[in-house]
Amino acid sequence: MPRLTLQTAGESHGPLLTGLVTGLPAGLKIDIAALNADLARRQHGYGRGGRMKIERDEARFTGGLRGGETLGGPIAFEIANRDHGVWEKVMGPLDVEPEAAAKRRLTSPRPGHADLAGGLKYGRRDLRDILERASARESAARVAAGALCRQLLLALFVRVRSGVLSIGEVAVPEGPRGFEDLEKVDEASPFRLVDRSVETAMMDAVDAAAKAGDTLGGTILVGARGVPTGLGSHVSWEDKLDGRIARALMSIPSVKAVSLGEGVANAFRRGSAAHDPIAYDAARGFSRTSNRAGGLEGGITDGEDLLATIYQKPISTLRDGLPSVDIDTKQPHRASYERSDVTAVPACGVIAEAMLAFVLADALLEKTGGDSMEEVKRNFEGFVKAQKQY
Amino acid sequence: MPRLTLQTAGESHGPLLTGLVTGLPAGLKIDIAALNADLARRQHGYGRGGRMKIERDEARFTGGLRGGETLGGPIAFEIANRDHGVWEKVMGPLDVEPEAAAKRRLTSPRPGHADLAGGLKYGRRDLRDILERASARESAARVAAGALCRQLLLALFVRVRSGVLSIGEVAVPEGPRGFEDLEKVDEASPFRLVDRSVETAMMDAVDAAAKAGDTLGGTILVGARGVPTGLGSHVSWEDKLDGRIARALMSIPSVKAVSLGEGVANAFRRGSAAHDPIAYDAARGFSRTSNRAGGLEGGITDGEDLLATIYQKPISTLRDGLPSVDIDTKQPHRASYERSDVTAVPACGVIAEAMLAFVLADALLEKTGGDSMEEVKRNFEGFVKAQKQY
Amino acid sequence: MPRLTLQTAGESHGPLLTGLVTGLPAGLKIDIAALNADLARRQHGYGRGGRMKIERDEARFTGGLRGGETLGGPIAFEIANRDHGVWEKVMGPLDVEPEAAAKRRLTSPRPGHADLAGGLKYGRRDLRDILERASARESAARVAAGALCRQLLLALFVRVRSGVLSIGEVAVPEGPRGFEDLEKVDEASPFRLVDRSVETAMMDAVDAAAKAGDTLGGTILVGARGVPTGLGSHVSWEDKLDGRIARALMSIPSVKAVSLGEGVANAFRRGSAAHDPIAYDAARGFSRTSNRAGGLEGGITDGEDLLATIYQKPISTLRDGLPSVDIDTKQPHRASYERSDVTAVPACGVIAEAMLAFVLADALLEKTGGDSMEEVKRNFEGFVKAQKQY
Amino acid sequence: MPRLTLQTAGESHGPLLTGLVTGLPAGLKIDIAALNADLARRQHGYGRGGRMKIERDEARFTGGLRGGETLGGPIAFEIANRDHGVWEKVMGPLDVEPEAAAKRRLTSPRPGHADLAGGLKYGRRDLRDILERASARESAARVAAGALCRQLLLALFVRVRSGVLSIGEVAVPEGPRGFEDLEKVDEASPFRLVDRSVETAMMDAVDAAAKAGDTLGGTILVGARGVPTGLGSHVSWEDKLDGRIARALMSIPSVKAVSLGEGVANAFRRGSAAHDPIAYDAARGFSRTSNRAGGLEGGITDGEDLLATIYQKPISTLRDGLPSVDIDTKQPHRASYERSDVTAVPACGVIAEAMLAFVLADALLEKTGGDSMEEVKRNFEGFVKAQKQY
Repeated sequence: MPRLTLQTAGESHGPLLTGLVTGLPAGLKIDIAALNADLARRQHGYGRGGRMKIERDEARFTGGLRGGETLGGPIAFEIANRDHGVWEKVMGPLDVEPEAAAKRRLTSPRPGHADLAGGLKYGRRDLRDILERASARESAARVAAGALCRQLLLALFVRVRSGVLSIGEVAVPEGPRGFEDLEKVDEASPFRLVDRSVETAMMDAVDAAAKAGDTLGGTILVGARGVPTGLGSHVSWEDKLDGRIARALMSIPSVKAVSLGEGVANAFRRGSAAHDPIAYDAARGFSRTSNRAGGLEGGITDGEDLLATIYQKPISTLRDGLPSVDIDTKQPHRASYERSDVTAVPACGVIAEAMLAFVLADALLEKTGGDSMEEVKRNFEGFVKAQKQY
Repeated sequence: MPRLTLQTAGESHGPLLTGLVTGLPAGLKIDIAALNADLARRQHGYGRGGRMKIERDEARFTGGLRGGETLGGPIAFEIANRDHGVWEKVMGPLDVEPEAAAKRRLTSPRPGHADLAGGLKYGRRDLRDILERASARESAARVAAGALCRQLLLALFVRVRSGVLSIGEVAVPEGPRGFEDLEKVDEASPFRLVDRSVETAMMDAVDAAAKAGDTLGGTILVGARGVPTGLGSHVSWEDKLDGRIARALMSIPSVKAVSLGEGVANAFRRGSAAHDPIAYDAARGFSRTSNRAGGLEGGITDGEDLLATIYQKPISTLRDGLPSVDIDTKQPHRASYERSDVTAVPACGVIAEAMLAFVLADALLEKTGGDSMEEVKRNFEGFVKAQKQY
Repeated sequence: MPRLTLQTAGESHGPLLTGLVTGLPAGLKIDIAALNADLARRQHGYGRGGRMKIERDEARFTGGLRGGETLGGPIAFEIANRDHGVWEKVMGPLDVEPEAAAKRRLTSPRPGHADLAGGLKYGRRDLRDILERASARESAARVAAGALCRQLLLALFVRVRSGVLSIGEVAVPEGPRGFEDLEKVDEASPFRLVDRSVETAMMDAVDAAAKAGDTLGGTILVGARGVPTGLGSHVSWEDKLDGRIARALMSIPSVKAVSLGEGVANAFRRGSAAHDPIAYDAARGFSRTSNRAGGLEGGITDGEDLLATIYQKPISTLRDGLPSVDIDTKQPHRASYERSDVTAVPACGVIAEAMLAFVLADALLEKTGGDSMEEVKRNFEGFVKAQKQY
Repeated sequence: MPRLTLQTAGESHGPLLTGLVTGLPAGLKIDIAALNADLARRQHGYGRGGRMKIERDEARFTGGLRGGETLGGPIAFEIANRDHGVWEKVMGPLDVEPEAAAKRRLTSPRPGHADLAGGLKYGRRDLRDILERASARESAARVAAGALCRQLLLALFVRVRSGVLSIGEVAVPEGPRGFEDLEKVDEASPFRLVDRSVETAMMDAVDAAAKAGDTLGGTILVGARGVPTGLGSHVSWEDKLDGRIARALMSIPSVKAVSLGEGVANAFRRGSAAHDPIAYDAARGFSRTSNRAGGLEGGITDGEDLLATIYQKPISTLRDGLPSVDIDTKQPHRASYERSDVTAVPACGVIAEAMLAFVLADALLEKTGGDSMEEVKRNFEGFVKAQKQY
């Protein structure tokens, strides 16, 4: 049963995005600079379109904090859409100017996007009514919410990070990658790569795709260190933390596959080469001599680094438009083009960190209970100590 | 927001498993033979251990049905554990015989299982207290529950199937596989393969693993045909059907990766080769000329076949025991061995069908509302017709 | 966000009732005799019909317990319907005998029952399909589930009790009643009255109603002592414990009004006479010099006794049938009569205890978190101590 | 299982309140003037303090609407706290000025409020951290959210209204009151009374209480007409609409008792005088010759007017402060005074309408399913027609 909730609202070109997070304890001091830095990281990355320069996202908190500290109630914030001014006549919540809206009406759904399925589901004849919410713009609110969760985790010495493994066909050298690799990621680098040796080749690949009017996806490693043993549970399918993590990561725009630990590779191995032997020493307690499970066994964290690989498909908005159909005429028509990026894989890692931080904070608070940071910490230390004495 | 719930209870060697499903409409006629056939399919497959022969599972319905028809309230059923008699003194819910229990106490956790993490989480010193619930035995109840959902779907012409793609290193010939391949799967065959040309090689691989006291995992394709456009939603992360499917599939024991459509492969392609062009003809309405998305775009079904690949790790119970530690002595000790299979990949497909059927039935009932089959069908036909006229 | 769930399944004359409770920590020792005693208390009371003698309910646990102790997973139990044998041809989950069923078909809905609204909602033409689930028989499963929660609470020194205030027009002498009164209730007495001085008058009233073929309702006080300060929350409408208690109590069959503390009386008083002054002494900490709020302020427990009054309408099944309509002929027809009680007010108190215990255990576990009784107690003691030092 | 969610955030003197509603279908045209009129009604009423004049609430929509029409996704709005400017140094979400905050620190908890229980629960030493969220100011966001739900209901011809029955000891003449009485309520009148014959006496009572520095509560009838048969369900305790309505109404600040229909009175009647006989005529279908059940039988709406009476305790903030204790010194101290009203009963009715509209819209959408207003209406008409043919 979840303790934390995270909801967002707002359209891509509406006035603003709203984020609402419930369930965080009172007394958590928010580092607003760190939170805004996460928002900036989401906007960063080689291969982004022009919009990223316009936005310069910042969260404005409107509820749940006082003097930079949580009060225990729902936390609300907003992130302005800086280009809403230009779009006001098209996307005004209460009023739109019919001619302006008509000019921006979209009738050629983009393959790979929610446009057509959403239009059919909600009975909308202007596909903008769908894409404005389906846009990855929404993920800015998730990043801010995730940053709150990350700060809770940090207070308990749990860190969350990510790094890019591949974009298009250019991949870092093979081999199991761990949290160490994520800690080496240079946030200022163009791709936030786990290994920068392929950076130039990757820039070339992105440039080539851009030139061809094409787009690229990629793969990302996201992980957490310091996660205590015992989050999630094996007792019911909905409690299993692996499923909850998979859901959260798969809900990120364009992510179409999730592998926990060496999940894909392990399916082809024998059992004797797929699991992580258990060891013990008095100082550290139980540990593993490998971490193919990615820190999750039976739906429960096992104390090792939590590691997941996500697979992002290429952006579905192409400059020249993929083959589609006009919903008015029912005739073939190239898909609409809305300003877009060549690739957003580096940003996707930042969103993945946010979603992972959210799920881990949720599972951790389920375990500790508690309404204030003091109480959360006390209960946390209690169970860590009990595990030491197990 | 979910409409259906599915809960199970019961330990592997306890008296029985309980399944409880809420949210199904009244007036659904249950084909009990088909349901028990699904239970039999879960027990079938080359490489299973001796327990499968003992069980011969059958569901006994105790609530929510009258004369084989749903009444609209919670549906309860039980599946007996036929070997409970032998285990009664060890696993009696109210009484255990201390000596019998002591003999069956487990203190060497199996790597890859919930044993150790669960023991630490719940503070249990007999790891049997964990593994009895973490055992894949629980999935029998899910299969029966899934069969109820499958029958609801069938009444609306939605079919769910699965087939094995690989076990260990033996895989069917490469190439995109679709629902057609799943329809050709021979349920009576040893592996429920999508392509039986590798069956002999696969039997050899399983025999070799068995001889070595080792285990194997594999990959499975699970899919659905007839799914209408418009299930799930793009509007919020929790509504996205891709995340909900990923969660349900990842909650299956030993599944560690989930790929929707060609999710893994698409991460390495360009956008122009990764999406599914939209077409239209008056008879069928909108359709796609390919289905790399696996029937899901923006978290919504797009009317194409729903397809997911799941990656199952090898069974973590090995005859000789992986390196572990005794929780009493804290000294190295081989992991406990509890009777087990060499591989359970064919069965995993059956469980995957059940979980997919559950998620699709849930999403479908969200869309239609309705409290009786008549009402569900009326609303279903209403929106299908409206989509035709879009 | 709830931590505990409680679901039941089963029809009144089906084979059995199923109860399923999730979220209880591991290591809670279940006192099965106490639990069955609660089931017996529900069947007891002056004015009950013949069925109560047949039933002699006992819970059979089938999951979630081992040797009488919780394991941390879902707990399942069943309570047999001892008269199912007679009803098998009418209420068989898989098979019914058409003639037997036709004979027991109900077509004249009872005013005050779910019969007609349920028949219309679920599209059922035999109203038995509705009343079998709407019957108060279902509450036996709630009482057993509540007994589990009660035992968790007892381990933390929280007690839950109830007593009857009035039946029909016969009421105990007026005046604020508290937990002390509930502790004096004689469980073996005919009405479980808070004050037995009116017992004879009440028996006469029940006898008179019985003779007239009529029924009676009444009012009940339910309460809890030892509830710590700080359960529930003021921060969101769904977190408010007053609303959650009201929901649980109002969900009891025939309960149509709920008053917390002196809720009804306070609406007519001035503020200076309606609230509970705050006092402090070093030994006990903060306390109140009165308890008109019934232990709840702003949706949070305040450390005083929790007290609620519930108002139960008279049983809606009358011997001679209230004026109704036959659903086949649409002609006026007396409502069907199914064996019933004259009054069930004493039993209603037992169900109210169960629902209150469930809500309090849920709120308490939200506060403490924890997966074992040891952890729950440790966290509980931690916050109680912190409050002492506030 | 709920389909709609309603969350709010924001402190009483923070920058603004946020409201977030999910689950409404696309294509609902919002009448913003009607919505703001509901906000104005909440601020109206004889006996209100000075703050009501400052506020003049208006909702600003920031997400989920385009051109005044819902898009199917989450709807966000904000309501400014017009006096935040003055409070900025005390209640700034990110920054407060320590001296300003110290001056406004509250250490003497008010009996009847969340102050003390909340301070202990969340571990806050400035009780302002609690009361800012516990304040009834939050209900403005609920009223706006309720207005959205009301407009959905209106599109399906369901109307929601309320009227005051009593304030302090002054009550309208006794007798069952129905929806007709609510329709006669004059919104511009000082108390929104069901019967204005007691208006002068009531003004006198309020004036007297004001003069004495005291406060008053009261009772309110809230109802709905046009509610179809079949919302809610009897099948599980959480589905019962009576419980869901009770929870929503009891979550309103200061409401301590809820009676459905003639719930309180019926507990003292015989069955033959407590239920509502069923009648039938071809034009209207089934109906009742009385409505003591208040439109709910067995947890399901029965097609009659839905009627509930709520009991509000007097406001707990008194000019002179009730006896309390200073949390620093632990010495007796009069409770803090924060500007407040003498009575807010008329406003409470408006909030009750909002909560009832929310619960009914939720239950209605559960029944209909559907993602657009067109689909909701189609499914609604389908089941209404089917009921006519039952």
